[in-house]
Amino acid sequence: MIAKLRIAVIGAGYWGPNLARNFDAGPDWELVAVCDRDRARAQLVADRHGGVRVVTALDDLLTAEDIDAVAIATPAATHHQIACAALAAGKHVMVEKPLADTAERGEDMVRMAAAAGLVLMADHTYCYTPAVLKMRELVREGALGDILFIDSVRVNLGLIQPDVDVFWDLAPHDLSIMDFVLPGGLRPLSVTAHGADPLGAGKSCVGYLVLPLEGGAIAHVHVNWLSPTKIRQMIIGGTRRTLIWDDLNPQQRISVYDRGVDLNLQALHDENRASSTVSYRLGDTWSPALPEREALGAMAAEFAASIREKRAPITDGEAGLRVLAVLEAASRSLASSAAAESVAPWERELIGEAL
Amino acid sequence: MIAKLRIAVIGAGYWGPNLARNFDAGPDWELVAVCDRDRARAQLVADRHGGVRVVTALDDLLTAEDIDAVAIATPAATHHQIACAALAAGKHVMVEKPLADTAERGEDMVRMAAAAGLVLMADHTYCYTPAVLKMRELVREGALGDILFIDSVRVNLGLIQPDVDVFWDLAPHDLSIMDFVLPGGLRPLSVTAHGADPLGAGKSCVGYLVLPLEGGAIAHVHVNWLSPTKIRQMIIGGTRRTLIWDDLNPQQRISVYDRGVDLNLQALHDENRASSTVSYRLGDTWSPALPEREALGAMAAEFAASIREKRAPITDGEAGLRVLAVLEAASRSLASSAAAESVAPWERELIGEAL
Amino acid sequence: MIAKLRIAVIGAGYWGPNLARNFDAGPDWELVAVCDRDRARAQLVADRHGGVRVVTALDDLLTAEDIDAVAIATPAATHHQIACAALAAGKHVMVEKPLADTAERGEDMVRMAAAAGLVLMADHTYCYTPAVLKMRELVREGALGDILFIDSVRVNLGLIQPDVDVFWDLAPHDLSIMDFVLPGGLRPLSVTAHGADPLGAGKSCVGYLVLPLEGGAIAHVHVNWLSPTKIRQMIIGGTRRTLIWDDLNPQQRISVYDRGVDLNLQALHDENRASSTVSYRLGDTWSPALPEREALGAMAAEFAASIREKRAPITDGEAGLRVLAVLEAASRSLASSAAAESVAPWERELIGEAL
Amino acid sequence: MIAKLRIAVIGAGYWGPNLARNFDAGPDWELVAVCDRDRARAQLVADRHGGVRVVTALDDLLTAEDIDAVAIATPAATHHQIACAALAAGKHVMVEKPLADTAERGEDMVRMAAAAGLVLMADHTYCYTPAVLKMRELVREGALGDILFIDSVRVNLGLIQPDVDVFWDLAPHDLSIMDFVLPGGLRPLSVTAHGADPLGAGKSCVGYLVLPLEGGAIAHVHVNWLSPTKIRQMIIGGTRRTLIWDDLNPQQRISVYDRGVDLNLQALHDENRASSTVSYRLGDTWSPALPEREALGAMAAEFAASIREKRAPITDGEAGLRVLAVLEAASRSLASSAAAESVAPWERELIGEAL
Repeated sequence: MIAKLRIAVIGAGYWGPNLARNFDAGPDWELVAVCDRDRARAQLVADRHGGVRVVTALDDLLTAEDIDAVAIATPAATHHQIACAALAAGKHVMVEKPLADTAERGEDMVRMAAAAGLVLMADHTYCYTPAVLKMRELVREGALGDILFIDSVRVNLGLIQPDVDVFWDLAPHDLSIMDFVLPGGLRPLSVTAHGADPLGAGKSCVGYLVLPLEGGAIAHVHVNWLSPTKIRQMIIGGTRRTLIWDDLNPQQRISVYDRGVDLNLQALHDENRASSTVSYRLGDTWSPALPEREALGAMAAEFAASIREKRAPITDGEAGLRVLAVLEAASRSLASSAAAESVAPWERELIGEAL
Repeated sequence: MIAKLRIAVIGAGYWGPNLARNFDAGPDWELVAVCDRDRARAQLVADRHGGVRVVTALDDLLTAEDIDAVAIATPAATHHQIACAALAAGKHVMVEKPLADTAERGEDMVRMAAAAGLVLMADHTYCYTPAVLKMRELVREGALGDILFIDSVRVNLGLIQPDVDVFWDLAPHDLSIMDFVLPGGLRPLSVTAHGADPLGAGKSCVGYLVLPLEGGAIAHVHVNWLSPTKIRQMIIGGTRRTLIWDDLNPQQRISVYDRGVDLNLQALHDENRASSTVSYRLGDTWSPALPEREALGAMAAEFAASIREKRAPITDGEAGLRVLAVLEAASRSLASSAAAESVAPWERELIGEAL
Repeated sequence: MIAKLRIAVIGAGYWGPNLARNFDAGPDWELVAVCDRDRARAQLVADRHGGVRVVTALDDLLTAEDIDAVAIATPAATHHQIACAALAAGKHVMVEKPLADTAERGEDMVRMAAAAGLVLMADHTYCYTPAVLKMRELVREGALGDILFIDSVRVNLGLIQPDVDVFWDLAPHDLSIMDFVLPGGLRPLSVTAHGADPLGAGKSCVGYLVLPLEGGAIAHVHVNWLSPTKIRQMIIGGTRRTLIWDDLNPQQRISVYDRGVDLNLQALHDENRASSTVSYRLGDTWSPALPEREALGAMAAEFAASIREKRAPITDGEAGLRVLAVLEAASRSLASSAAAESVAPWERELIGEAL
Repeated sequence: MIAKLRIAVIGAGYWGPNLARNFDAGPDWELVAVCDRDRARAQLVADRHGGVRVVTALDDLLTAEDIDAVAIATPAATHHQIACAALAAGKHVMVEKPLADTAERGEDMVRMAAAAGLVLMADHTYCYTPAVLKMRELVREGALGDILFIDSVRVNLGLIQPDVDVFWDLAPHDLSIMDFVLPGGLRPLSVTAHGADPLGAGKSCVGYLVLPLEGGAIAHVHVNWLSPTKIRQMIIGGTRRTLIWDDLNPQQRISVYDRGVDLNLQALHDENRASSTVSYRLGDTWSPALPEREALGAMAAEFAASIREKRAPITDGEAGLRVLAVLEAASRSLASSAAAESVAPWERELIGEAL
């Protein structure tokens, strides 16, 4: 039997307890400490897990020798400082999304982890749901052919957040999933963001992101806090098949359509263009069975596996950085009246290097 | 009993027979002639309607004194010439969408009809469906409050057309409906179009239209020829209620949600912004009963009523022109890498005058 | 090229015109006459089909030598007399459902057609829809394994008919489909009908039919005139797979679930029965593509093919008789307070012989 | 402030912990003990609630003076004995469904509680969901008019239980909801059960219950362990409106249709019966907003309120008894080849008295 890895959860607010529960439950990890400046809050979490150690000072935590890794669930503005301290102390690090509050700081974290030979993992939880894992598998094995478009809709009646707009609140999910599913990660040629603030809330409550991809393909995200009904739907169109993910239909979350349009390029460039340039496939629909498994459990397992196998996790720091870079470009686009913003050169370079 | 108005249908191709059938069936009109350069094609249509007159030369048709109005169902490039000739001959005119092939020519038609005191009507057929008529009624009576956003999705596996892109093929429906429903018609502050041609068909097959509206509101259209499933959905979000139109759900096409977000503006500008700035309404949902009525029949009735009452029809030439102007601006936007295009000044002016 | 067969349609009321249109449109048939006592009504139909012959007296029709077959769309009470006369005159016969007004008369028609070597076909139109044809194919090729249960729901806000109850109005569809799909046809061990007349209409408006099948399986039909929403759903459960037909979901009418319960019979009879006696398969779902084809056209083609190939059609007179026998048994059950009625011996015998 | 009532939970298996959690969480109750013969199991539950008292002998529990009420979550065969002992000790009693293993024993419990002036409550949890509470309110205030039919479907891929058939496993939910919703409770004129065991499991896996009601109305239940998809749907048809409850549609669980059939009785008995005997209402659909509230919390509150207000709870012992009586009659019907079984006289009498 392999010895368990030992982890501490930093931050006992909304998300930390979920992390603690999943690290404690799985076979890979021993939860050894919960760290929060607010001792009472940390104690509450620790009590649910057999009274593990409570720590209130980060330094005390990081100097402990019985800790292999930390999971950071504190506000985004603190991620960079805490993650860098942990890496400096030789700990593997998992960070709640977004990776950092700026892409520059995120980049710093990625470089530092690489230099230290430690794992830096982004907590893109959705990627570990059975449906999204299956989507990645299908896209990567070529079941859809070349990707033509990805259209994602994530709308609901949402809490208007004090600190973030609808892009930073909801789009990280869509972007991290696209990044996870696409073979080379999400690398848009540019980012254009259209936002609307029709209530005068001081920030976008309705948003559209346009992300042209290589080869003429396009990705698009619609996020919205003002919709009375909830929609969670992503269409991934490919040359061979098209997949629709409807996360609110538990009886058929994923449908793969063997339908599409085939273009006869020869005919297209003939003088007499006729309908014969295009033909349709109207094949069967298929919905794969999905196992029942909690996403956070699968994520904890991947964190352990990547450490043991000395490899990047499937949602690594670069993945977190790519998502962050798109969000930053979206904010720049919003600030410049929906100009198409390139993802900054250093980001592209780093991403290029890192992979 | 009122005497019937007398109409001729020009163009016996795809749409003309539908027009002929509906004008012949209703109580308002007498179908007196079918006109097409191809006599056999015209004869086929005429035979289905008690052998009405067949005419092959436009001049012969327009000099006839037993014709009060014409319905034009010819290719868009010929609309301007035929409509102007008919107006010059003193006939009321209905034109299949789009009103003309350019906004400039459409403007000319609008001016000419106004000068002659004749009705010029745009055949925005969808506007006469029971669902869209109800949407217009609800929006105009204030049931939704101020409009915050309109999001329309019209996707399916579509025939890639030789002459038009996906915007000109599908978006006229969404735009004419938005124009019909919004109290002052569709008057976006600008038009941005994002298109993708991932198959290399030589034109956009996936398209997104972004239309900022007065007061911070936004309209958005997603049109797509590459989707394996059909979606026809429009969400109209308002300050009081939100309406969802799902045209593929015959058992509940329209749902009106008494749910939304209320913003406490006072609280918003306080120093300590807290969650109390926002409150939710989670009220009932209501789905109005809709009569069963064919749209084209309602359109024929409106054409007759507008002539008799010497008023503009509810889908008048200006409406057709506004839709055309947005489509032209979309094409300009596409040609300039998704720049935000204003709808040209002369159009805004004309529209201002006309209304 | 094969010469066309020549047909006359008898009865120009509600259904006759649909038959005329389909026989006229397909490649197999020449429509030569329309017969109705009401000449004007027959003329109206004839005019739509190039002015085919109009006949008002059945005798005149049946003595004509240019007629190979007749399609009967008159009231049920007249089916027996007309069909027998047509068979006596050497014509092949297709009869609108129900085959006759009593099973005894239906039996007589079946015997007479067999003796004369002529085709007698039941117009079970639903059976010729692409979905039901696919269901038959899947069941018969064993894709579902042995059938465990069939549950059919057909409810809507229905016109309360003056002459028939909800069983005779709606259940013929469900029964003819079950008969078509099941390998040996629908041969229930008994028939129990539960009806309710809560409005005091003098007949059942809500009905349930219970049909135990060989081997412990069961078929069940729920028909209802008082439901505000329309449901058309049939579940066919098998030992290998289960199929759900939802006729109101045009995007996915048929779903085949590779899910089920496997029983470990060994374990079941052990002393310590535990949950290990049962195991689950939770496999994929599959929805076959269905062609777009009008059912009546496919039916006309089958009528012609059965005549040319001198074989029974896939919905032959025996099929019509089996459905009729179940409906009669249902009426007997209703009259005797929901007793389980056997399908009468002569029927079983005849059915046995005939197949 | 009112003093809390003090409760002990008896049985620490599957359901007991849920009861303990809800009694502990609400404002009305103090959880003082958990009782189970298996001390370890009881301790586990007690530990989650601040280490409340663990008791292994029922006598020890019932002699304690700091206990006002007990909640029984033990196997059905033990309900009668435990409940009677608790009532004899002066404790109010809540019993998990079914009330007892036989109606006779259930009757005994009801009589004993009535004699002692103590509350006996049936844990019909579903009745306390917001949707079912709203259904009861709507039916009882007359929004649906007189009830014409109730059709309930509860099917899924189910665990084939060692001890019970599909009726006893699933139908208690449907029956307790019908009992809760109908103004006078569920009092069928007779009970007919049709079961099928197509897998040879030794018990019914597919079942239909037919329950004729007063005034020509009918209730029907379809329960099924062999369906690959889950359906939870109840249609309640009334003379004024019809309600559909779809428990798997969280966005619109309840729909109320202002549609129906009106019968013109005068016309019905005329000589010339025509379609004028029936008219349709095709009005709006309405879906009430439902609060988010856990059912068990509402049930705990009702138990406390009924004790304090010295009244029967809305799911009292009689309600439990009525459900039990129908289930017993269903088993008798199954045993006698689907004969219509009356609910035994003593039951009807008791129910008459008790209410």
